[in-house]
Amino acid sequence: MKRFTTTAIAIGLCFAGFAQDTPDAAIVQKIRKEGLENSKAMDIAFNLTDVAGPRLSNSPGLKRAQNWAIKQLSDWGLKNAHLEAWGTFGKGWQIDKYYAATTLPFYHAIIASPKAWTPGTNGPIRSEVILIKADSVADLAKYKGKLAGKIVMMDRGTALTSGTKADFSRYADSTLAQMAAATPTANAGRQRPAGGPMADRMAQMMKLRQAQAAISAALLEEKVGLILTYARGGQGTFFTSNGASYALDAKPVSPELEVAAEDYLHILRLLRAGKPVEVEADIKTSFYDQDPQGYNVIAEIPGTDKKLKEEVVMIGGHFDSWHAATGATDNAAGSAVMMEAVRILKAIDFKPKRTIRIALWSSEEQGLFGSRGYVSKHYGDPKTMVLTPDQKKISAYYNLDNGTGKIRGIYLQGNEAAAPVFKSWLTPFNDLGATTVTINNTGGTDHQAFDAVGIPGFQFIQDPADYNTRTHHSNMDTYDRLVEDDLKQSSTIVAAFVYQTSQRGAQIPRKELPSPQPARP
Amino acid sequence: MKRFTTTAIAIGLCFAGFAQDTPDAAIVQKIRKEGLENSKAMDIAFNLTDVAGPRLSNSPGLKRAQNWAIKQLSDWGLKNAHLEAWGTFGKGWQIDKYYAATTLPFYHAIIASPKAWTPGTNGPIRSEVILIKADSVADLAKYKGKLAGKIVMMDRGTALTSGTKADFSRYADSTLAQMAAATPTANAGRQRPAGGPMADRMAQMMKLRQAQAAISAALLEEKVGLILTYARGGQGTFFTSNGASYALDAKPVSPELEVAAEDYLHILRLLRAGKPVEVEADIKTSFYDQDPQGYNVIAEIPGTDKKLKEEVVMIGGHFDSWHAATGATDNAAGSAVMMEAVRILKAIDFKPKRTIRIALWSSEEQGLFGSRGYVSKHYGDPKTMVLTPDQKKISAYYNLDNGTGKIRGIYLQGNEAAAPVFKSWLTPFNDLGATTVTINNTGGTDHQAFDAVGIPGFQFIQDPADYNTRTHHSNMDTYDRLVEDDLKQSSTIVAAFVYQTSQRGAQIPRKELPSPQPARP
Repeated sequence: MKRFTTTAIAIGLCFAGFAQDTPDAAIVQKIRKEGLENSKAMDIAFNLTDVAGPRLSNSPGLKRAQNWAIKQLSDWGLKNAHLEAWGTFGKGWQIDKYYAATTLPFYHAIIASPKAWTPGTNGPIRSEVILIKADSVADLAKYKGKLAGKIVMMDRGTALTSGTKADFSRYADSTLAQMAAATPTANAGRQRPAGGPMADRMAQMMKLRQAQAAISAALLEEKVGLILTYARGGQGTFFTSNGASYALDAKPVSPELEVAAEDYLHILRLLRAGKPVEVEADIKTSFYDQDPQGYNVIAEIPGTDKKLKEEVVMIGGHFDSWHAATGATDNAAGSAVMMEAVRILKAIDFKPKRTIRIALWSSEEQGLFGSRGYVSKHYGDPKTMVLTPDQKKISAYYNLDNGTGKIRGIYLQGNEAAAPVFKSWLTPFNDLGATTVTINNTGGTDHQAFDAVGIPGFQFIQDPADYNTRTHHSNMDTYDRLVEDDLKQSSTIVAAFVYQTSQRGAQIPRKELPSPQPARP
Repeated sequence: MKRFTTTAIAIGLCFAGFAQDTPDAAIVQKIRKEGLENSKAMDIAFNLTDVAGPRLSNSPGLKRAQNWAIKQLSDWGLKNAHLEAWGTFGKGWQIDKYYAATTLPFYHAIIASPKAWTPGTNGPIRSEVILIKADSVADLAKYKGKLAGKIVMMDRGTALTSGTKADFSRYADSTLAQMAAATPTANAGRQRPAGGPMADRMAQMMKLRQAQAAISAALLEEKVGLILTYARGGQGTFFTSNGASYALDAKPVSPELEVAAEDYLHILRLLRAGKPVEVEADIKTSFYDQDPQGYNVIAEIPGTDKKLKEEVVMIGGHFDSWHAATGATDNAAGSAVMMEAVRILKAIDFKPKRTIRIALWSSEEQGLFGSRGYVSKHYGDPKTMVLTPDQKKISAYYNLDNGTGKIRGIYLQGNEAAAPVFKSWLTPFNDLGATTVTINNTGGTDHQAFDAVGIPGFQFIQDPADYNTRTHHSNMDTYDRLVEDDLKQSSTIVAAFVYQTSQRGAQIPRKELPSPQPARP
């Protein structure tokens, strides 16, 4: 019943909004021309990836990229480009050297990466590899006193199969139609039901993690030289996303190497067959703990309307990445698109009514910390739902963080009243493949921080490309995976959405305020 | 007209052959049971790949595998398993250490492999990377005196795109039907037409190669420290197949590293943008020239028929591989299937009328040298078509060298008269997907050495799997890419073909003798 009422209100808003949401064809045309014909998106991405390198939270690579972005945003004429601390993160870390190879039964260099926030080997080491068959600390008894300085691996790993599906894909029209046809009911529950198979699986996972932590502690006590860990993937691609603790007071851990599936399984098959394997390695890593603060990059195009300039439209994407590659699709792509969007608006000399603010978040990969810290400081606390006065002054936050894929539409995040607004705004870009407005939620990235305190926060629908198959947290998330035409299209559409939001008579309609969420998962 | 007559004869042979070519259901059933239910194909492949390692011609890895195969074939009860020299190959070579990383603009370990038969760096080196823009030696003038000890790369490389087709595929029924429907006319010409676009391209390629050789010589004279070369591929997979010269009197060459596309393009983009790049590397390789002879592994199941035991049916595949991985699909797969085929025949205690001989060739990758040397010694010289008496005593040679893909049929190599024989022999395996007999030729492997002297030489049709997309001469040609069910199926079918050929009243029908080919391409 309540839901029915809400829908009626939404339709009312729809008609009310339509006139003010008809895009100004001339400005949209200027944005398109600048965005599609004079794009700097790939240059930006080049600087974030090839030049700055991996951008793990609080690493020198992230700082390089942040400094470059601040200068670049300022050079384009944005105001007040600066680093803003969001809270305490912990230690930075980077790889200074990585080398490993099997030397027995034959020489073969290993594709791998040191696990984030793990120490190095303290110089070159070489040892037989010891296969650890253990599900619990008790199982480790038989190895007692035999592991000091040794290279060890757990008896785990999944046989590979070769891909019978293409790595790269775009959304089919039918999939987009399904998204468009989704109803609020399907997304009604904010809370996962208690118990059930999901809860069982979570409990099981938690148990496994505890066992692994206990085993890791025991291996540290045995002073193992290096742990080899199976890294999911195949054909030279491997995925990494489990760092050790970055806390200032983190307990020491053993040196650990995440090894590409082929190389890991090679050693595992040999050990299981009782054949000796010897590995040599030389790993150096550095920790940075002088400034444990985490920082976001913030910059603005100030509003020009006497009244509305106090209001804000925000865009952003996370700037940090994992460490095994240069985080091109996760999320130099989204960052470059957002930077390019404000560049486009400056290039066409657009004077917004509302202030436009870009945020390049850090520590998204560790739990949306940068955006959550920012929101908590500026807009309110989702745990208590105590809100600041500024919470009312931000019209919307738009996010991009799903890889290189072009924009196909937008997730309403359950905000029905925004549907007709966005449908209208997408119209001039229907020819570029952006058509779909879905009531669906999407998660896992920074718009959630805004949504959690009742600010309209949105993530665009993007073509999957090879995000899940090849790039997301992988060692192959490089500049090569960026599709130039897609970044151009996305930047153009984001620029147009920002333009519309900054000029719109009213703010973007809001959902009901969420309830306080004291126990955030 | 002549072709028409030939077809008529073929049809005649077909009817004549049919009775003697009806498979003995009981023996085929025994072969199927042993091959499908008690397969050792994966164990064999494990020993050839994971245990023996890369099997580059005349390398220690190849020798390890050869020694293992001789022992294994003997253990199964084959007779006279031995190494047989086929002629002079040249130097063996192996990698003793490979390490390289960019150290500027940030640290990143490089996926690569030393180019075959190139020297090491004589200890760790580190230098800026110098981008060489040169199409000829004349273009190198500007670098004179500036390259000593430096790491250099050529200004070449192709931007990557992501796969919109699956890596792994099987032949569609329609493709197989097309192969089956092919007519001899389509394959009539043995010679390529003189002139035309192909000749132009060849001439252009030759010119390019000459320029490259001249540039390489000039770089050697400048005493460059290391050349980085673009290796085709993507997403962690790279392909290698161009070694330096293995000749005993080969001219010296510079150390050279074949670099995976992502890592090469990373450096190239930076250098093109004028950003300094520094690389450190440590490469050690060894050459082996004490015994320049090349060897094949040969073993037999002796024939038992008083008259026919002098005759031979041969099977084989090449045993050598490239060096960046363990040559699992090229060609541990074919070798393992052939070894497994003779194991199956011994396991069911089959006593053939004709002698069965298995050959595991070396130096196929450098030009089918092992098989050509063997054929030249035992059967005749394709340049003169002077044949030995033994040429008449070999009924057929069957080869396998197209990866892990299961057998879908057989290429007749233009031998129409063999079609009804093979169709009949495939019948008991139609249910396993092996159905197709095509008049088509297939090339690039060792059956051609036999075909060249008028001996019926065949290669089976195999599913493409991920041979061309991922494994053929790549760093990802590992055990993981082998499909167990496919190797089982192939071994079973080969065993059945060998059984049939060894028992058949007449030899496999022959084509007309080819003309002498004094200028082998």
